[in-house]
Amino acid sequence: MTLNKNFNNLKQSYLFVEIAKRVEAYKAANPDADVIRLGIGDVTRPLTPAVIDALHKASAEMGTPDGFRGYSPDSAGYPWLREAIADYYAQSGVKINAGEVQVNDGAKSDLGNFFDILGEVKVLVPDPVYPAYVDTNIMFGNPIFYVAGNEANGFLPMPSGVGSTRLDVIYICSPNNPTGAVYSKEQLAEWVDYALDNNALILFDAAYAEFISEPSLPKSIFEIDGARKCAVEFGTFSKMAGFTGTRCGWVIIPDELEYGGAKLGKMWYRRQSVKFNGVPYIIQRAAEAVMSAQGLKEARELIAYYRENAKTITSALDKAGIKYTGGKNSPYVWLKCGRPSWDYFDYLLTEKNIVGTPGAGFGVNGEGWFRLTAFGTHGNTIKAAERLVSQ
Amino acid sequence: MTLNKNFNNLKQSYLFVEIAKRVEAYKAANPDADVIRLGIGDVTRPLTPAVIDALHKASAEMGTPDGFRGYSPDSAGYPWLREAIADYYAQSGVKINAGEVQVNDGAKSDLGNFFDILGEVKVLVPDPVYPAYVDTNIMFGNPIFYVAGNEANGFLPMPSGVGSTRLDVIYICSPNNPTGAVYSKEQLAEWVDYALDNNALILFDAAYAEFISEPSLPKSIFEIDGARKCAVEFGTFSKMAGFTGTRCGWVIIPDELEYGGAKLGKMWYRRQSVKFNGVPYIIQRAAEAVMSAQGLKEARELIAYYRENAKTITSALDKAGIKYTGGKNSPYVWLKCGRPSWDYFDYLLTEKNIVGTPGAGFGVNGEGWFRLTAFGTHGNTIKAAERLVSQ
Repeated sequence: MTLNKNFNNLKQSYLFVEIAKRVEAYKAANPDADVIRLGIGDVTRPLTPAVIDALHKASAEMGTPDGFRGYSPDSAGYPWLREAIADYYAQSGVKINAGEVQVNDGAKSDLGNFFDILGEVKVLVPDPVYPAYVDTNIMFGNPIFYVAGNEANGFLPMPSGVGSTRLDVIYICSPNNPTGAVYSKEQLAEWVDYALDNNALILFDAAYAEFISEPSLPKSIFEIDGARKCAVEFGTFSKMAGFTGTRCGWVIIPDELEYGGAKLGKMWYRRQSVKFNGVPYIIQRAAEAVMSAQGLKEARELIAYYRENAKTITSALDKAGIKYTGGKNSPYVWLKCGRPSWDYFDYLLTEKNIVGTPGAGFGVNGEGWFRLTAFGTHGNTIKAAERLVSQ
Repeated sequence: MTLNKNFNNLKQSYLFVEIAKRVEAYKAANPDADVIRLGIGDVTRPLTPAVIDALHKASAEMGTPDGFRGYSPDSAGYPWLREAIADYYAQSGVKINAGEVQVNDGAKSDLGNFFDILGEVKVLVPDPVYPAYVDTNIMFGNPIFYVAGNEANGFLPMPSGVGSTRLDVIYICSPNNPTGAVYSKEQLAEWVDYALDNNALILFDAAYAEFISEPSLPKSIFEIDGARKCAVEFGTFSKMAGFTGTRCGWVIIPDELEYGGAKLGKMWYRRQSVKFNGVPYIIQRAAEAVMSAQGLKEARELIAYYRENAKTITSALDKAGIKYTGGKNSPYVWLKCGRPSWDYFDYLLTEKNIVGTPGAGFGVNGEGWFRLTAFGTHGNTIKAAERLVSQ
């Protein structure tokens, strides 16, 4: 009996677990401290009325002989949800076939499991980066290469920063977690060209697309010519509609996407039919409600709420003369803390009672930087912003 | 860019997809036929009142600022659900620590993904077998060995039937899908001894445990001495409480379970924290309700309903003089059809308008046998039973 030895190469503790530990220890020692959490990227506002209605309606159906649903007819989701997601793309001018949409329980699962259908691949990861990208590939034993995001390139690494090794898989997250930076269409086009030239695959993480406020910025990789031949896009209801505890997302695999004659969409569908039984019916109905006209209106009001928080934070940083990226088209503000980021974490926690996320937790290029999120309440975010600028 | 070449070794079509195709074609040609589906192992009765109440209550919470829940504190599930599952085991005398319970979105996902934490392993699969076990291992490229279940051993293969190759992973499903056969404690003890002697791991699929009606038969592998050192158990709410479309299950990984000093429970926890974000809060509350006194009472009434169907089917088979296993402690009745099982499928579909599952779809030893399920309504099952015995 042998185990997966690659697990030995994982670092001991997951970033957010370490943060939770330090916060717990501080709170245990200082039970009266009013600690404000702008750390983990979790939403705080309730699900919106259209979603709650759908949940109740579907729950009631499940209690009746006629309304009850067993296994999803398809691990990729009910047709009405796949069509609703395709329609959502159509609204911003991106043509997706409902058959190209496969529903999942959140982007994290698919971003990790997607490697099940790939061979041994060399992977390009931006640094700083969402830690799960790296851990997934360590578990698979895939060679990982990094491309640096830094102050000089505005935390938007470009193909020119990649070495000469021929790479197979390229992660792109835009709007970016943790830096909040967003690629322009021209910049994404460079990555698409690079992928096409190298017969590589782009895994495009669009979890924060709805936070984009500038109309010129691309919300989907499929706004770029050629992307249908080299990219897969992961979307999620988590941040756009507060589904972090409700769990539903999707992956778009274009029909054209194939390598050596094998269609990725078909392989993924097969993988899922063997190792996944679909998202709960009730949750699929809730997700469908998000994509309705009323649901999208409510979701965008939610996002406007969080965007106001981002503005509160960036205004305070402007006032304090602290450099940052993000905030405008992203729920994340990435600030230059000018010292080791775990030191800054401890300083913010103990002196200002604010929990953020140390940039070092996202990679070597994150050192000296720090992430705050706009997912708090208005009241807490205003309080935190005041503490940030106070001496 | 390379793909997972093992996918080329998968058979073209998944069993239930092929069945669905044949049924659709028949119904298209015979739109008025009253086709009764006793094929796919899906439940048909609605969720019970305790579960529906919990769904509504949790849905309402999610719409309020105070009741809203984002990410699960833990991908392994809320403590109250893990404790409820441990309590459930305690009620039948099996001592499990809540920390050994990890909640998932159904047994299928974990039974497949579990190999992520293992190395290259030789796998023992009973034949006939639930097809996902085999497909999962084909995808991983693991060498698969079979042990025959057949009329002679009552479809309960024993270690004496295994060849001399040293095997690493042993699948056991009891009560069995598709044969309905159930191991006794003495028989399971032989498998536990075999696993301990060979430093192997048992993956115990207990999806149908609640269907056991004879008190002497084991519902959990952990009723067997030594199992905590060689077994993992997969449980699910799917069949016990009608959750096939609601999606919640669990895996028990005992603290003692380790190979070469590495604890499997910790590795799996780490795997899940990187590639899974937990089961929806609303669904975890519904699952908790199943484990309450009232929920279990309702679940067992559901099971009694299905058990009556099994009795209806087996009585008809007795009358017709057809041999079978299962039915008494299982929702599955496995009958000897005495001809190629896809022929019998077509015969039942076209002559009797009954959909079942051909034994050949579960492996070479399934040929000549056929699976019917007790998951229909009473009305349909009685009608199907009448058709079975009619000339």
